[in-house]
Parts: sequence; C-alpha cells; structure tokens
Amino acid sequence: MKVHLSQQNYHIGNFQLNREKILVEVEYAKSNGADLVVFSELSVCGYPARDFLEFEDFVVQCESTVQEIANRAVGIGVIVGAPTRNPIKEGKDLFNSALLLHEGKIIGQANKTLLPNYDVFDEYRYFEPAYQWKVVEFKGKRIALTICEDIWNLGDNPLYRICPMDELMKHSPDLMINISASPFDYDHDDDRKEVIRMNVLKYQLPMLYCNAVGSQTEIVFDGGSLVYAASGELKCELKYFEEDSCLIDSESLYPATPASDNFPIRVGKDMRVAKSSNPDQIINYLTNDHNIDQVKSALVLGVRDYFQKMGFTKAILGSSGGIDSAVALCIAVEALGAENVTAILMPSQFSSEHSVSDAIALSRALGNPYHVVPIADIYGSFMDALQPLFQKSPFGIAEENIQSRSRGNVLMAIANKYGYVLLNTSNKSELATGYGTLYGDMAGGLSIIGDLYKSQVYALARFINSKQPLIPEPILSKPPSAELRPNQKDSDSLPDYVVLDRILYLYIERRKGPQEIIQSGFDAALVMHVLKMVNVNEYKRNQFCPIIRVSTKAFGIGRRMPIVARYLS
Amino acid sequence: MKVHLSQQNYHIGNFQLNREKILVEVEYAKSNGADLVVFSELSVCGYPARDFLEFEDFVVQCESTVQEIANRAVGIGVIVGAPTRNPIKEGKDLFNSALLLHEGKIIGQANKTLLPNYDVFDEYRYFEPAYQWKVVEFKGKRIALTICEDIWNLGDNPLYRICPMDELMKHSPDLMINISASPFDYDHDDDRKEVIRMNVLKYQLPMLYCNAVGSQTEIVFDGGSLVYAASGELKCELKYFEEDSCLIDSESLYPATPASDNFPIRVGKDMRVAKSSNPDQIINYLTNDHNIDQVKSALVLGVRDYFQKMGFTKAILGSSGGIDSAVALCIAVEALGAENVTAILMPSQFSSEHSVSDAIALSRALGNPYHVVPIADIYGSFMDALQPLFQKSPFGIAEENIQSRSRGNVLMAIANKYGYVLLNTSNKSELATGYGTLYGDMAGGLSIIGDLYKSQVYALARFINSKQPLIPEPILSKPPSAELRPNQKDSDSLPDYVVLDRILYLYIERRKGPQEIIQSGFDAALVMHVLKMVNVNEYKRNQFCPIIRVSTKAFGIGRRMPIVARYLS
Repeated sequence: MKVHLSQQNYHIGNFQLNREKILVEVEYAKSNGADLVVFSELSVCGYPARDFLEFEDFVVQCESTVQEIANRAVGIGVIVGAPTRNPIKEGKDLFNSALLLHEGKIIGQANKTLLPNYDVFDEYRYFEPAYQWKVVEFKGKRIALTICEDIWNLGDNPLYRICPMDELMKHSPDLMINISASPFDYDHDDDRKEVIRMNVLKYQLPMLYCNAVGSQTEIVFDGGSLVYAASGELKCELKYFEEDSCLIDSESLYPATPASDNFPIRVGKDMRVAKSSNPDQIINYLTNDHNIDQVKSALVLGVRDYFQKMGFTKAILGSSGGIDSAVALCIAVEALGAENVTAILMPSQFSSEHSVSDAIALSRALGNPYHVVPIADIYGSFMDALQPLFQKSPFGIAEENIQSRSRGNVLMAIANKYGYVLLNTSNKSELATGYGTLYGDMAGGLSIIGDLYKSQVYALARFINSKQPLIPEPILSKPPSAELRPNQKDSDSLPDYVVLDRILYLYIERRKGPQEIIQSGFDAALVMHVLKMVNVNEYKRNQFCPIIRVSTKAFGIGRRMPIVARYLS
Repeated sequence: MKVHLSQQNYHIGNFQLNREKILVEVEYAKSNGADLVVFSELSVCGYPARDFLEFEDFVVQCESTVQEIANRAVGIGVIVGAPTRNPIKEGKDLFNSALLLHEGKIIGQANKTLLPNYDVFDEYRYFEPAYQWKVVEFKGKRIALTICEDIWNLGDNPLYRICPMDELMKHSPDLMINISASPFDYDHDDDRKEVIRMNVLKYQLPMLYCNAVGSQTEIVFDGGSLVYAASGELKCELKYFEEDSCLIDSESLYPATPASDNFPIRVGKDMRVAKSSNPDQIINYLTNDHNIDQVKSALVLGVRDYFQKMGFTKAILGSSGGIDSAVALCIAVEALGAENVTAILMPSQFSSEHSVSDAIALSRALGNPYHVVPIADIYGSFMDALQPLFQKSPFGIAEENIQSRSRGNVLMAIANKYGYVLLNTSNKSELATGYGTLYGDMAGGLSIIGDLYKSQVYALARFINSKQPLIPEPILSKPPSAELRPNQKDSDSLPDYVVLDRILYLYIERRKGPQEIIQSGFDAALVMHVLKMVNVNEYKRNQFCPIIRVSTKAFGIGRRMPIVARYLS
C-alpha cells in the first residue's frame, strides 16, 4: 500500500481554505499513485479550535467539510482529523477523531483516548476519551490508527491509566498510523523521534506519523513528520517549519528486526517539564546554537503566520537602540519583508545619544523604514496636567511609566492610523519579574521574544550576526537600560541576567520550589526576592499579548496562575 | 452526631491564614458540642489554586497544613479539602480530596471522581479522577463523602460516564456530605438546591452541603451552604456572599419520607449554558430585580475581596458622567468606602458640559474624592508630535484612541504615584463588540461590570437608585456616548442595546450559531455583523483585566477562543 503523508498549515475555522488545501493534496497524491493520503490531527477545522468546539454550528461545519472531502476520496483513501459525535448520552458530546474516508463514506474511525490537558492543551474540556478500540482496515491492511498523545503513554511513570496501543494490539494490526498536532519547543527536540521509535520497537510495527505545521496564535507546530520501519529504522523525515509531504510504500517498512533497544530518553510525566536541571549548565543549554537556530525558525514562522492568518501585512515596533527591539526587528523583517516593518524611534530627555544612532544604524542595515518621534513634549504635557495632583512629589515610577506609556500611545496611534500591527519587544526575563510598563512597553498585538530569556536574546542576536552582521556592535555590548531616568541600568533593579535567568528557568520551566533552587547554589534572599517578583506580577502578564511559544513553559495560555493569591509573595 | 458546617472565605496559597481560620472554627465548633466540623473543597490551599498545584513545594505545604489541623482535631472530627497523592504511578499525581481528620490522623478520605473541566474549571489539568469508592466511618455513621461536581451527574444527559453516589450506595451509607467550591452566577440561582434535593430524594439520605464563600480574582463563591433532611425538607440554608456556619444534629434529618417528586430543573450538560432562550424575554430576564440584587452583592464582594486579598485599600477610576462609570463607582464605594475611591474626571474638547457636572454631582452624592484633569493639552501634544507622520489625514479612530489612551495614562500615573488600583468601567456589550480602546478605557486591574450587558448596567443603576437616589437622573436618561468626537453617540456605531444585548446573549451565553439566532427573529445582516464584531475583537479581550464573573459565560478564563482564526468573521 502506497501512503502519502501530508503535513499542512491550517487556518482555524476557515473550513473553505482547509478543505481546498486537503483536496488539492488528495488529487496530487492520487496522481502519484497513492492508495492512502494522511493529514494531521483536526485538520478539517485547525488545531486548537478552543471553544469554537462548543458551538453546534461549528461542529456541523466540520461534519459537512468531512463529507465534502469524502465525496472527493474517489479511488483513494483519505485520513483526516475532525471532531465527531459521541453516540451515547453519557459523557461529553464529542470525540477527537481520525476518520478514514473512501468513496463518499467514512469507512473507518479512531477516537483519541489520551487527551492532553496540561500546559497549552485543554482537550478534556471538549472531548470524551475513547473507551473502545479497534483497527481500521484498508486495502487488506489492519491499521492501528491513533491520535497524537495516544502513543506517548510509555515508560514507568505514565500520565494516563490506559495505553491505547496495548488495546489495539489485541486486534493484530499490520501498521501504525498516528496523526498529530504536536508543537515545537526547544526542550523536546529529539523526544518525538524517540517516542515513535519506542513504539515501533515495542510493537514491532512500522509507524507513519503525520504532524501539523504552522503557527496558531502562540503555538508553533513544527512539522517534521516521520516514517519508521518496523526495524526501528528512520525511513523518512519531513521538513521542519514548512509544509511538506512524502510517498511511502508500506511494504518497504517490513520485516521487523526483533531489535531490543535502550530507551535513552525520559518518558511519562517528566516530559512535561524542561530537561536541563544542572544549574551550571542552564545558560549554555538555553543559548546553544542548535536550540537558537530552531527558535529563530519558530519565531519567523510565528510572526509570518500571525500576519497572514489575521489578514495583515504591515507591522510597527518601537526601536529603542537596545538588544530586545533589535532582535525583534530582525525577526519581523525576515518574516514580513523589510518594507513591511516600520521602526519608530522615540527618544526622551533621558535617552542617550547612541540610542537613536544605534537604532538608525540597525534599520539602515535591515533596509526597513523608520521614523523619529520625540516624546519629551508629550511627557511634559502629562506632567503639566498632573501638576495640581503630583505637586512636589519626587520623580519616581509614575514618571518613568508616563514616558513608557506615551511611547505605547504613539505606537498605537500610528498603528491605528495606517492599519499596522504593533509588535511587542519584551523578553521573558522582564515579563517574569514585572520589569516593564503595562500599556507602555508591554503594549502590542504579538510578542516576538517574550518566551526568550535575556540570555537567549543575546544568543539570538549573535546567531543572527553570525550569518550576516545586521545588529550594530554597540547594541550587543552596552549594558541594558530602560532609559527612563538619568543613567538608569537594568542592573539597578534586577540581578545580573546570567544569575536571574537561571533562577527563573528553575522556577518556571522546572517548577522547582524555593528550597530546591537555593540548594542549587543560589543566595536564599535573592531566590525569595526573584520568586516573589514573578508571583506578584501575575496581574501584568495577565494583560499581555500572545507570546510565540518556544519553551516548555511560556507565559500565557500554558501557564495559569492565580492573580489574587499569597504564595511565595 | 452533631455536625458543624462552616462556609469560609480562603486566600489562595496563604496557608497560615487558611489554617488559622479553620482552627479557630474547629475550637468554636468543639465548644458548641459538635462531633464533626465540615469545611469546603480545597479549603487548605484555597480554590482555584491553578498551576500552583504543579509545584511540589505547594503540595508539601498543603500536606503539612493538613497535618497541623489534624493535630488539633482533638475530640472532634474535621473534614477539610486538600490535594493528596495518587499512590499509583499511572495517571496524574494528585487527587482532589476530602479528608476526615481525627486525633492527629487522616482517618478517612474521599477523592473527587467528576472533575469539572469546562468554563472557568480546569480540574483535569491537575487531578486524577477517583476510580474506587468507599464510605467514611465516623461515630458509627457511614458517610457518603463527595466533592462538589460528584453529585451533579444526574438526569438523562449526564456529562460523565460514571456516577460516584451510585457507587457509594453499594456501601450502605447513612448520610451524604458534600464539600464544594461552587461559584455564583445569576443563571443558576436555584439549581444548587434542586440538585441537592434530587440527590436526597434519589438516595433517601440526608445531605450536608458545605460551599465556599468569597471572591477569587474573577470567580465569586456565594456560600449558601445547605442541609436537607432525608425527606427532602430543607433544614438549613447558610447566608449568601458572607461567611456563616450552623450546627445540625444529624438525627434530626431522619426518617426518610419515601417521597416521589418531579424534578423541575434542567440537569446534565444543559446546566452549562444559560437558561433563558426566548428572545423576547431575554432583557426582562437579564434585568429582573432578583437577579440584579444578587449581581450587586456579587460585585461588591468581588471588589472587596480583590483589594483585601491583594493587600490594597485605595482605588481610582475614570468618571466620565456616563452610566458605566457611575455604576462602577457606586459598587466600588460600597465595597471599599467612599474615602478610598478617587474619581478622576478628564474632559477633552469633545466632552459635553454636563459630563463633568453629572460626574461631580455623583461624587458629591457618594461622598468620594474627585479631581478634574483636563486632557486637551495632552491630546494636542500627541497630535503635534505625530504631525510629521499624520500630516493632513482626516480625524479618525487614531485620534479618538489617542484621547482614550491619554486618559488611561493619566489614571495609571496617579495610580502609580499613590499606590492605587485602577478599576475598569467597561461593560460586556462594549467588550463583546470591541467598542473600547485597548490601553485606554480598557485599562485597569479589575473590571467591575465587564460581565454585565449595557441593559443590565441600566437595571443596576435603577436598582441602586431605588434604595437611595445616588446616580443623577441625567446619567440615566442621556444617550450613551464615548465623547471622542463632536456629537458622537454609541448608536452611530452599534445597534440599539436592547437588540444588541439579545443577540450577544444568544451567541455568548447560549452558544447559538448564526442561523439559530436569525431564526429567533433578528435581521440576518445585523446578526452576521454582530457575530463578526465579537470574533474579530478577541485580541482586545485577550489583553483585558479579570472581570468579576456573574453570568454563565463571562469573558476571560472561562471563555477560550482562538485569536488567530476565521470563523464567522
């Protein structure tokens, strides 16, 4: 049986577009002699459709799209992902299903058993877990058809009490097919391959694994679909961060070599936290070239898909002459084209001379348009209006924030005037500690580097410059500063980033408590101070825009903390 | 057996405070001769603790707090709610448990079976469902101990495939005790009583039901704990929206009258959507005095608890002379005291004369401090700075938003200067349609009336004035306007609120699709326009502050929509 795997980039709720993408590929696969074409999880509606799944109208549109695809599955089998109805009254109304379509009909169906409900995933909110299992038969093959998480319940500390592949093995399958929507993060680079290989070796069957690609608001699906022979040999690996497909003859995937193998990776619940926990190696781990290279691809795809799927072409951002806005600007220019990204330089009386000159040099190197809009007079008008209230109170946080919010207002005004989207340039270290101004530098529609610690922002800058020297050297070498008061430095308020980022990583990615972090070799008072900063600034992050997720634990939908609470705070 | 039910207001993660509250009540119950004292769901750590539950340190603190309470359960049994460890490796690591403490030990335990994972609930994110059931024995009584959702799986369309009370009945219990954290909404006023009575009549056993009280960021727990005799007779109903307790002799709750009874309410999955669906009655339903009275209590508690638990005392808000800020100000003053709520009036060149005079009259009636900060010069300074970019482009949305964001900046500056919290005054109709300015009138730390449609805001204003005439008549009678350009009216951009609110309610609370709404008697083009406005403004609401939730479907954590999508948009 010849199987065509197709990893595509879907648009959530855009049934017409998704259907057309799928149908074009079905015709292409057929013309190449494929017997079966496989698409990714929930391909019909896009993943994650979130609470759209609670709308009957949305589910009906999924069903009619499935039927339209089935009608075109003439002379070829088509596996798509779609929500389907739970036929019994007990339990939730929907399943997350893989459907085998052929000659106008649904001739096979598998429902997802293991519903991820951690981090960015909410599948148990919508779906009933499968409670019966059988193989799907096509062209004489008995296919163990599963959906994403279904094949991840291996190891001796599994997250679920049931293993659907064990159940399916009772029905003597010949072949495993898994359809997925499995997102990228730099911490799980090799896990996917290892998990699939573990399944192959455990069940002695070939596996065809079809992943989604494309960014959906904050979640980047990275593709990299895989085919393993029953022997455990990798036969095919599709591209990462772009659409791709391949045609495989399933007969080439046998026989199984009865291999035994060590399983070198963590499996089970541990997979849900980041890998590196040696405090001395964290910075090296976070900033190594392999990780940073992938992160860059994910960010470019994240920006590009946000604009394309939202129907925008032009972006604006505040370019301060600092490292964060420099890196964000480079990514935006790569994603959208230099002509589509306008940099706004907004010096105040507290800005250093080189801020403007460095930002101008950067935009000249990138070739993107830029404008200078000084804010000193705007700041003065606020101070005048507030004089009756503020009187002779000393310069402080309020005055700093007025500057930052004036910049936010200028940026949003230009964005509103010309239909641009404001890109945010905050980094994860700032967001974690609350070192940012709500409605000021925290404004924007999409955060490019909000899941990168400051150390990673520097690494990404160096990585970018290693390919082409775009970012002026002073931006890389000068000490970080918000420039909201004379001679201000980040280090006035925050620990050195190399120390800070390690503590943050242990707390956020590794979910270590204060005692564990202190025992890793950090000053106790500093650890308590950092953890308190993280926790008391939850209210700020709660109003922040979506962040392109590249780590195992990004701020946003995947990290849900109480705002009103008193814990480590 | 004498049972003391205690509904308390906990602080999430504040183990010391929660423990002391519980221990004081244990001593009080003991001094009143109680054999057993019952506290609400997850009382030890507060509900919902969200991702704090993923921290080992947090779980350890729950365990040590439980032990400290057990050590003081001398001569009395104590039932508390806490997370506990799943003893087997398979499945998630925690249960959501009710623990019976006595003489320093945990002598009984029930784990929650039915884990709500809809709307604001995420319990399957943290907990493994119970998979075995037994009664808890104390003082010769066999107690069927359950947790909140466990008793809600009745009716012929249940949300779960298992019914834990049916399992517990196999062990011949004498008595049902349920510990809950069940939030308020005006749509489910009577459901709780009916569900408990249905359980009592079905199982022919008395029920002691202990609910939490108090507001946790956006979720308001309303108390109203209940005791039903086995006959179905209501024996005790604790207060709503405040702490309360009662002592019940369980012997007074027998014998069961073998009553048969009609079950007049919806049960099963339908409970998750709002009740009223007759389009002609929606406005009457939303604005009736009974609902509005409860909503007002919930909002006052919501504001009060936010400040108290965050450690703030003083609030600031923008007072425009319009109905929304007037109602928000009345609620804030009732919650925090007039002296703690500062109103800022920020007229521009587009403000009408009466805006300022009406706002001043309101603050004089309420007795709260107010200040006037004109923003015309600030607006002018932005326009000057942007002149090189904007040139001769016509006045439009950008210029309107500059005014709104200048006000946001003024409010935040004062809040930052004096340590106040900015209260937001947006209503649900505006938030739904995107009729508001991000970082402008959408700024603030807590939204008071963001879950009230405009029709409900008017009803609440009339309700407030019916008790005491606080809101000046012109505020109630003048047509709503944002006053961001000459002679602007809300009705220039939006349908009449009476029509708009009905469409929004059908879409948001009832989750009706466009065809169903149109078939209810609304203009098709208008319905499509409104639904599109709701969907394309998801990015704005995503950056909005927490909204005190009073409906079955508030914007925020309980409504999770894709931002990048194309569905009805």
